Order: sequence, then C-alpha cells, then structure tokens
Amino acid sequence: MRTQVGILGAGPAGLLLSHLLHLEGIDSVVLEDRSRSYVENRIRAGVLEQVTVDLLNDTGLGERMQREGLVHHGVEFAFAGRRHRIDFADLTGGKAITVYGQHEVVRDMIAARLAAGGQILFEARATAVEDIESERPRIRYEHEGEVRELACDFIAACDGFHGIGRAAVSDGLRVYERHYPFGWLGILADAPPATEELVYSRHETGFSLLSMRSPQMARLYLQCDPEDDLKNWPDERIWAELHTRLEVGGGPAVPEGPILQKSITAMRSFVVEPMQAGRLFLAGDAAHIVPPTGAKGMNLAVGDIVVLARALAGYFRQNRTDGLETYSDVCLRRIWKAQRFSWWMTSMLHIFPDATAFDDRLQLAELDYVTGSRPALQALAENYVGLPFG
Amino acid sequence: MRTQVGILGAGPAGLLLSHLLHLEGIDSVVLEDRSRSYVENRIRAGVLEQVTVDLLNDTGLGERMQREGLVHHGVEFAFAGRRHRIDFADLTGGKAITVYGQHEVVRDMIAARLAAGGQILFEARATAVEDIESERPRIRYEHEGEVRELACDFIAACDGFHGIGRAAVSDGLRVYERHYPFGWLGILADAPPATEELVYSRHETGFSLLSMRSPQMARLYLQCDPEDDLKNWPDERIWAELHTRLEVGGGPAVPEGPILQKSITAMRSFVVEPMQAGRLFLAGDAAHIVPPTGAKGMNLAVGDIVVLARALAGYFRQNRTDGLETYSDVCLRRIWKAQRFSWWMTSMLHIFPDATAFDDRLQLAELDYVTGSRPALQALAENYVGLPFG
Repeated sequence: MRTQVGILGAGPAGLLLSHLLHLEGIDSVVLEDRSRSYVENRIRAGVLEQVTVDLLNDTGLGERMQREGLVHHGVEFAFAGRRHRIDFADLTGGKAITVYGQHEVVRDMIAARLAAGGQILFEARATAVEDIESERPRIRYEHEGEVRELACDFIAACDGFHGIGRAAVSDGLRVYERHYPFGWLGILADAPPATEELVYSRHETGFSLLSMRSPQMARLYLQCDPEDDLKNWPDERIWAELHTRLEVGGGPAVPEGPILQKSITAMRSFVVEPMQAGRLFLAGDAAHIVPPTGAKGMNLAVGDIVVLARALAGYFRQNRTDGLETYSDVCLRRIWKAQRFSWWMTSMLHIFPDATAFDDRLQLAELDYVTGSRPALQALAENYVGLPFG
Repeated sequence: MRTQVGILGAGPAGLLLSHLLHLEGIDSVVLEDRSRSYVENRIRAGVLEQVTVDLLNDTGLGERMQREGLVHHGVEFAFAGRRHRIDFADLTGGKAITVYGQHEVVRDMIAARLAAGGQILFEARATAVEDIESERPRIRYEHEGEVRELACDFIAACDGFHGIGRAAVSDGLRVYERHYPFGWLGILADAPPATEELVYSRHETGFSLLSMRSPQMARLYLQCDPEDDLKNWPDERIWAELHTRLEVGGGPAVPEGPILQKSITAMRSFVVEPMQAGRLFLAGDAAHIVPPTGAKGMNLAVGDIVVLARALAGYFRQNRTDGLETYSDVCLRRIWKAQRFSWWMTSMLHIFPDATAFDDRLQLAELDYVTGSRPALQALAENYVGLPFG
C-alpha cells in the first residue's frame, strides 16, 4: 500500500492530522494498534483550550462538542482556607475552556474521517519504521494476520509515549525529563460535581482537583504517593480526603456516589529534541509529556499537528520545504512554554515531600500574589486558555 | 534618658522611622553602634522603588534625590544571545525606579533629623533590650565610655541582621531561610556604565548585572561561588567575564576602568515571624533578607517603617492599638511577596550548579515566555517598581 503521509496512531494527533491533510487534498493512512472501540473509550484529558476549540470548529469537527461540551469561563483556586475565582473571560477578553473528553474528540474525528472516505486501519500493529532518511520511508505493520508495508512520502509518529516512532530515531534525540515526587489518584464518580467549574485546591494534606465529565458525573483527583497502591485507597478514605481538601473556604459539600473508575498516575515532564528526523515527524505524546495540572496534554498535540499539517501542505501544494525544516523549532517553542506553565501550576499547587518551611511560605506567597494581581492572573489565564499556535 | 520610641540602628529603617514619627509629633532617640561617617559611607543597595521615591518626596526627604538620582523607566534582560528591554513606564502606567545609593538616602535622612533637632547617638553600642513585655521597655547601651539606659514606651529594632533586637526575642521566632548555591562578586569601577539602564544577563557561564552609581561610575556584578576568594578574581578575569556575560545580543562594549571596590556576597533569603514581641518591633534587615536580584532590600525596610509609623501614630495620637497588634501580619504579607519576587528573579537568571538539562530548558522557556507576554511583563514590572505598601 502507498500513501502520501503515513500516520502512526489514531489518537487526537493522528486523526486530526489525517483530517487536516484531507482538507488540503493530501492523502494519508492511519495505522492504529488498538480496536476502534478501545480508542473511542480510552479515558484521557478533558479540557480543551480556546484555540483548540476554535480549530475544531473551524475545520468542521466541532458540531457535537458545541452541543455537549461544557464551556467554562473560569476556574477556582482554593488555598489557605480561601477560595478565589479566576475569571478567564474577563482576563483574556472573552476566552474560555471547554470540558469535553478526549475520547469524545476521538469519536468525532473518527466519524469525520470515515464519512469522508478516510483510511484508518484499526488493530494494525506497526512494527518498524524504515528508510526515514530516504524519499520513500516505509512503515511495516501487521494487519489481519499478515505482515504488510505502507510506502509513504512522509511519516507522522502520533503513537504516544510508548510508540515505535520515537524509538526509530532515538539515537539522535536529546531527552529532557523531570519526575515529580507525587502522583494523582483519579476517580470517576457517579455523582454530580460539587461546583460547575473546576476547583484547584492546594491543601496542607495535598493537592486536589475537582473536575467533571458531565453535570452528573464528577472526575476527582487527589495528590498521592506515585508508588502508592490502590489497595490503600478504599472509597471511604478517598471521600474523606476529598471532603478535607475541597470543602475549604466555604466551598460546597462534595457529593458522594459510586466510584466507577480508580487509578494512580505518576507525574512527570518529558520532551525530546528535535521532533523530526529525515521524513519522520514526531507529534503529541510521542515527543512530550506534561503533568496534567495545566490541562495541556491533548492541546499540545493539537498545536503540533497544526504546524505539521501546514508544513506538509506547503510541501505538497507549493513545493516548499521551509515549514518541514522548521517544524521542530516552531513546535518546541510553544511546547516549552506549556512545559513551563504545567511545571509552574504543578509546583504552586502540590505539597512537595521535601519542602522546607521557607518553600511552604513561598508557595503560599505565590498563590497570594497571583490571585491578587491582575497582570499575574492574566498571565495565568492566557496560558490556561491556550497560547497562540506556533 | 527617656523617649517615646527607642530606635536601634541609624540605617534607612531607623532613620525613616524617627523622621516619620517626628512628623507625627512623636519623640524618638536613635542609637547607632557606628560613627556618622561610617554609616554615611556604607555602600549598600541603590535602587529605589516608585513607592519609596514617592514616600521620600511626600515626607520632605527627596530634594537631593530628585536632583541627583537617576530615574530609569526600564531595564534590559539578556539571555540566549538576545536582549529584551522591559519598559516599566509603559507596563505600569508611568512608574519608574530611581538609582540612588542607600548611603545617599542615609545622608539625607541624617541631615533632616539633625536639622529638626532629632536625637541620633552615634557610636552608642546597644548591649541589651529589656522588659519588652512591660509598658516601659528599656535599652541598655554604652556611649562615651559610660553604660546608660534609654527608657521607652516602644522599641524599634532596625539594627540589621546581626543586631541585638532580634536576638532579644529569638526564642519565640520562627525562622524561614534559603541559602543559594552562589554569590555575587561586586565591583565599583571608575568607568562609565555601558548602558544607561540596568542589564540583567542570564549567561551560560553565570548571571551578571550591569548597574551604576552615577553616569561616570559603573557597579557590576558577576555570579560566583559563594565560598570563592577574591584572590581568584584578578581584575583581568573580572573584565573578561563581564565582557562575555554582558556583551551579548548586540549589546555595547563594557568600558573598563580602575576597580575601586571588590567584594563577594553570599545570597540567601531569610524571614522571621512574627516581627514583634510585646513592645519590641523588628523592621528591615533585622527581620528579613532578600537576595539582591530583585533590588528589594532597602525598599522592604521602608515598607515596614510605613506600617510601624502609622501604628505608633495611631497609638500616641488616637490611643488605638490595632495597628500595633497587626503590624507583623500586615508587613509579612508584602514581605513574602517580595521574597517571592526576589526568589523568582534569582531563580530565573542564575545558573544553578545542580540544574538538569530539563531545568536549563525550563529557565530559558520562562525567559522566552515572560519577555514575550505583556501580562507576564506587567507582573514583573509591578513588582520591580514596588507593590503598594501594606
């Protein structure tokens, strides 16, 4: 089989690339290890930046999101027994975020690709990327019990942190990494969220985040030891900690309900440079991971794809290579700013096990300053709703 | 001897307090270990916040400062081979900083106090503070070869980090502290500064600051090991490093000249809480130290004194104690914000010996973000020109 752009991975990055290329009249094939049902039900991030929302709307992917997504014009910070609402709309000239699950975005993208005759091969396990320094790179993959080959002009590795794309060029890559001394215990609860907007709570017993999947279903997080075992977290302990950490400063009671999912995720920051080698381009989690505190994961993938799709369109439609050559540099500048923001939010809101009394006071001073300064709030808000794409 | 307010230390804090109390008709005596000549020639900070300048002008201390001080409407940041001017006036609605040496401020304050008949005892070594929990606290001191006693209604310890004031109450104080893994090698050079405004340079070989005492005399700093010995820094090495670190991004050559002073200062952050005990009040360096990167040292002392003078005026003129009771809390809120700013400027601009490659990238991303975002620049500027007094 042959295509112009071979895409590894049917997550938001790979699917969006395929869609944007289609709009430019460029052919692509998406290879996805997993089944359609699996990727359509894989729970990940759920906060879309304004720039992401605008892009989805502008490219015809936003219809259901506009109907079902929850538009939030602010979030709340809780610390030192106080609550402070951060009004994104006021601070950014009307911008907002939209709570809409990543798996919903994936469903919408798959539907759009298939309706347009796009090729997505599910349960197609890519095993090798070859000849990326040539003009005809190839992907080997297994599908329907056979070993096959996809000949491409370009390959986009949108296959996540554990994908084969990055591994194919790992020799020349520089890795930048930080592991945080905590994780997030996340639950999905069949209970309404206590508030309409997200609440970020810095509490002396640990960070907590109140989020939601829908007005009937809360998504709640607790800072925990990254090596902790779910066995140590019976439901009663989880609810007790959520009450302690979230019901501060006059905040409403957190309604309890059946816990439908429970998981612990370690937190880290990760970037590889450069994000390209020959005719292979890395995008999304294949190239970078952020701690979830800034809600940037999926949005960063979208940012990469906007740059990559533009570069590929420049090549195929105008025979220009400048966009391809600068792909990594353009992406990385925005990615590092998002890394900075995610690190900052993480540092400001979590309890660090090795924090000194000075660190503790400094952290509270930062929250006190930020929530009391309009410029500082504007800086926070412009990052949260999304810096312009590169 | 007897007075209403006994003041330890004839630095900017103690002298300003004596002056502000005088304007309120409250009697004070300043006891200073050193000679007048010593304190008038002791080189310290040299950047006054807009709020400090306004206060000095409003209280009749600003005449020479207005004539001789250098008003700066911005500073420059240099990093990654680029230079970026930060326009305080534009970012803060017309505010500025004034470069005017702390010893000049001290001279003006001494002159004003003596002209008004104020009592400043130089070479009066305070040896003990007693009965601070009573209504008649006392200071024991040695003057002109005799042991004497100053009976007061209140005592203000403005006697610096090594003074006896804090030591008198150290039992009940909580100490918050951070030592940084570097110091500043500072020189005063008989050479014009390369630029009219301050330049903060983050260079891979270390931080450097270009400042000035006057248009003919440069004050220059280099990040160095805090344990380093001046013997390792012959003049040629100093100039070579200054050229390397400051002449970046098309910046002008740094003119050389005779080095008149040379010193190494370790950098740290330090705060004690609370800043009061009974009828003893701590102010300025007696209670807190900031690393000099944010140019906040003297300005913080001024901020404390504004609060203390108001509290004492409330007591003596209206028989109110609320200002005295909340003195520490009111001061500390602003102090911690200044600690945060000083820590942030220090962290963003220095090379940390244990920084990982990730930390390095994050630091550059922070500089890239801050210098490219108007809200982030406004946040920096509002701190640099001075947050409102408490």
